[in-house]
Amino acid sequence: MLKISFLGGLGEFGRNMTIYESGNHCLIVDCGMMFPEAETLGVDRIIPDFQYVLERKEEKDFALLLTHAHEDHIGAVPFLLKQMDFSLFASKFSFGLVEKKISEMELECPSFNDIAETESFNFGPFSVEPVFVTHSIPESYSMIVRCEDGVFVHTSDFKFDQTPLDFKTTEYGKLQKVGSEGVTAILIDSTNAETSGIAGSEKTVFKNIEKYISSFRNRLIITLFSTNIQRIQGILNLSKRYGKKVAFLGRSLIGNIEVAERLGHLQYPSNVVISPDKIEKMNRGEVVVIATGSQGEPFSALSRIAFDETKELFVEDGDLVLFSARIIPGNEKRIGRIINQVYRKGGRVITPKDDPFIHVSGHASQEELKLMASWVKGRYYIPIHGEFRQLKENAELARELGFRDENILVNEVGDSLVFRKGEFLYKEKFPAGMVWLDGESGDPVGKLLLRDRRHLGIEGFVLPIVVVDSSEGCFESEPQIIHRGYSPLESQPDLYDEIKRSIKELEKELTKAEITDQNILKAKVKSAVKKSLKRREAKIPVVIPVVMEV
Amino acid sequence: MLKISFLGGLGEFGRNMTIYESGNHCLIVDCGMMFPEAETLGVDRIIPDFQYVLERKEEKDFALLLTHAHEDHIGAVPFLLKQMDFSLFASKFSFGLVEKKISEMELECPSFNDIAETESFNFGPFSVEPVFVTHSIPESYSMIVRCEDGVFVHTSDFKFDQTPLDFKTTEYGKLQKVGSEGVTAILIDSTNAETSGIAGSEKTVFKNIEKYISSFRNRLIITLFSTNIQRIQGILNLSKRYGKKVAFLGRSLIGNIEVAERLGHLQYPSNVVISPDKIEKMNRGEVVVIATGSQGEPFSALSRIAFDETKELFVEDGDLVLFSARIIPGNEKRIGRIINQVYRKGGRVITPKDDPFIHVSGHASQEELKLMASWVKGRYYIPIHGEFRQLKENAELARELGFRDENILVNEVGDSLVFRKGEFLYKEKFPAGMVWLDGESGDPVGKLLLRDRRHLGIEGFVLPIVVVDSSEGCFESEPQIIHRGYSPLESQPDLYDEIKRSIKELEKELTKAEITDQNILKAKVKSAVKKSLKRREAKIPVVIPVVMEV
Repeated sequence: MLKISFLGGLGEFGRNMTIYESGNHCLIVDCGMMFPEAETLGVDRIIPDFQYVLERKEEKDFALLLTHAHEDHIGAVPFLLKQMDFSLFASKFSFGLVEKKISEMELECPSFNDIAETESFNFGPFSVEPVFVTHSIPESYSMIVRCEDGVFVHTSDFKFDQTPLDFKTTEYGKLQKVGSEGVTAILIDSTNAETSGIAGSEKTVFKNIEKYISSFRNRLIITLFSTNIQRIQGILNLSKRYGKKVAFLGRSLIGNIEVAERLGHLQYPSNVVISPDKIEKMNRGEVVVIATGSQGEPFSALSRIAFDETKELFVEDGDLVLFSARIIPGNEKRIGRIINQVYRKGGRVITPKDDPFIHVSGHASQEELKLMASWVKGRYYIPIHGEFRQLKENAELARELGFRDENILVNEVGDSLVFRKGEFLYKEKFPAGMVWLDGESGDPVGKLLLRDRRHLGIEGFVLPIVVVDSSEGCFESEPQIIHRGYSPLESQPDLYDEIKRSIKELEKELTKAEITDQNILKAKVKSAVKKSLKRREAKIPVVIPVVMEV
Repeated sequence: MLKISFLGGLGEFGRNMTIYESGNHCLIVDCGMMFPEAETLGVDRIIPDFQYVLERKEEKDFALLLTHAHEDHIGAVPFLLKQMDFSLFASKFSFGLVEKKISEMELECPSFNDIAETESFNFGPFSVEPVFVTHSIPESYSMIVRCEDGVFVHTSDFKFDQTPLDFKTTEYGKLQKVGSEGVTAILIDSTNAETSGIAGSEKTVFKNIEKYISSFRNRLIITLFSTNIQRIQGILNLSKRYGKKVAFLGRSLIGNIEVAERLGHLQYPSNVVISPDKIEKMNRGEVVVIATGSQGEPFSALSRIAFDETKELFVEDGDLVLFSARIIPGNEKRIGRIINQVYRKGGRVITPKDDPFIHVSGHASQEELKLMASWVKGRYYIPIHGEFRQLKENAELARELGFRDENILVNEVGDSLVFRKGEFLYKEKFPAGMVWLDGESGDPVGKLLLRDRRHLGIEGFVLPIVVVDSSEGCFESEPQIIHRGYSPLESQPDLYDEIKRSIKELEKELTKAEITDQNILKAKVKSAVKKSLKRREAKIPVVIPVVMEV
């Protein structure tokens, strides 16, 4: 029996994590994170709930296999590592990036098995064959997972780029070969399942960016994902060709290119790269700045540049900022904030909306998905990676390809699919969900605590304090009303006295026994406060009654 | 001397408000609101800061002129009315919609002067000529404002639709005439200044929606702006033609079509409109549902439909939802939430991204802006309505039209422009800003209060309480630590005792005089708490020390 369980990445964008489980062995494919809406409730990362894994960690052997090093595939690895051990299978580049993350969290990095070294590797009952695919980061792989209950092709992220800048194209032969041997199921990326045609080649972006690099007379700032090494290589090469210098700004960018250079994915042309402190000394038409912050992140290099918070450079009249990246839905507002600021300073901005070929997606569009499925074939078609809409549109493609409805399996996080001898048996549910991580500490933030923060942030709080003489059963001193963020107490100052009065009246209304019982008194104080707010038609905030005994 | 002051709508989307001031007369053009990012801090509307107006309300006469009835032009009217009187100039339809708003806030509605009744009207030194323009709401007007210091064409929102469904086109003649007479300045909409070409005709949408209405076999749900009366008329006519029924869902929609019908902007074809409680009784291919909620608003009709919160209908397999509206940046996430839910229930969704002619903008694109400017001419070109980027792109169009740089005036909220005898003299600044309104009460929420909410929502709070015997100068009873939303106290329970201990130690460290001085003691308690959190490398929340005296 083989069980495939989805811990993340279905019905949502990001946080990809899938488990292939057979006997005592669990092969985890990817362990990613996702970003919440801009700065909600002090949370800046969401990872999968690992409960499913942790419950089994004593009886089973675990391996983690990374298909590539994007955040939505590796971002949660250190958090898993904090809680359990596993064997790690990855390519050198993916390992290089995940190793950085792990050491930043002061954890010990496990040793890793290089999946690019051999044709295939074994883990318990599994034999796994990595298939190199083109994507938007070095060393991306689809995985062929073989076991006695079937052959599964886990495409992960891919596109078919025939003209990548490094000339390294997808290993089509392996995909066609496994297809001719027979595949049980294809688990296939849905990110761009709504987009017709093909994703387009990195070469197109290269040619398009050439026109900007060859002709700019003021400063050119290009923002992109810090893992898009090929594009960075392209910009370096073009800058060499046109006699420009390149400076890098952004911590993650500098870390990633260091790994890429070490592994031979990035070659610096001679005399092109300059250090950021040289920027202001050069002629303004001479320097291309590559900066992180394409999603408008408030502390990113681009944001700091726009708002004059760096010492390296300032946006001035005539400067041009290129957004060479997809704008992830939800980030429009904070990107807009940066764009407006650039214009305010006299600069201009080009986004993919203005010039579509300033960026191409790393994800397969419909024609590529259909090509992949035509080669791999497979009895079952399982869309992965995407919001529910994308999974459904991907399922629609399967229908067009001739898959029968009962062989198209659309799932959500918390679904397990059970297969035996190449046959899909049934689906079952397991407890799954999201874990929110606190922005600063990285600790998980409980649901109740988030609920508190949400209420505090929307309504503020009112906290009445009563001091009780527990031997006499009476109030000592005046009650105090502490409040923050609650607007009615600002606009109606006499409301304050009214709340106080309603609490003081409790001293007469209640018996001594009630006053000396903390729980009863708290409940009475709370309801007295709420009543006086309701009487004034004020909305009800978080009310936190406190009783101090002396 | 004429002074034009911008209280809103420049460097931002929404909240349009401009004042033309001459002698003792202030002509306010529009008084709109804007929406904050989705449900931030319990605030659901942002209006202009009226300080500039209120400071002058005793000495000057005020008139409010409404160009049309969109929220970003009329939404703040009741809040202004709450604070001062003014004469009201509007068309019947705009008045009908603003009257509803005013009465919802239980204010008395001022009488109004119908601007469509006469060729022009006077207010103090001003003579104002309304020019009918096509837009996406009935009765939209550009305004020609004449006074002895110049002639100003305030375009407000417009587009040039030659084939509107009601055959009522822009009064081009008036624009050309004023242009030939001589114009001091054109104040021109920038909303779509980045978009090349023309906005497109409502007729295009009509023809496109026909294919959905003529062919659907399941339920068709169309969501649109509730003021888009022409589009609603089109859907009614098409439904009649193809033998379908139409039901309306959404409070604002029902209010607006009532006004539109009363004023002759909407004609119900016979036997087409049904009441929502009939929907579930009809054949699923027979009913078109028009619903509010195109921006994903959580309590809108569409959201309630998607999440099964209405009794009138449920989304089922094969149903189709059309988003016949622009997706306003910042709303993508909550719209996505609805789209995914529709797919989860087996339905499908078409947005303007999938089918561009399911919606056309009501705002002029570049070619229309250039046409407008070519007719009106004008010595100065003043972009209004738009984020900074759009204002700058609009300024770029002026340059292409041959305006000289010094005659293109790009402004921000808080700028006043002073003109004399057709000549621009200088720009000055006045205190301006945003006023945030509390979601529930509609009361203004102060900046400090918002800052409190933001901190509480992100970090939570820790509130240490100390009871002091003021005669003895010592602590009575144990200090208490109240906290909400602060994660380190959840993940490190012993931190609680550590904080307590650090407070208790103060009793020994401080003198009696210090203990009995509330301010000193509070400061000491606060710093003791912060110190112990820092020692544990926990982040610092809002710390609110409280001292109770007995």
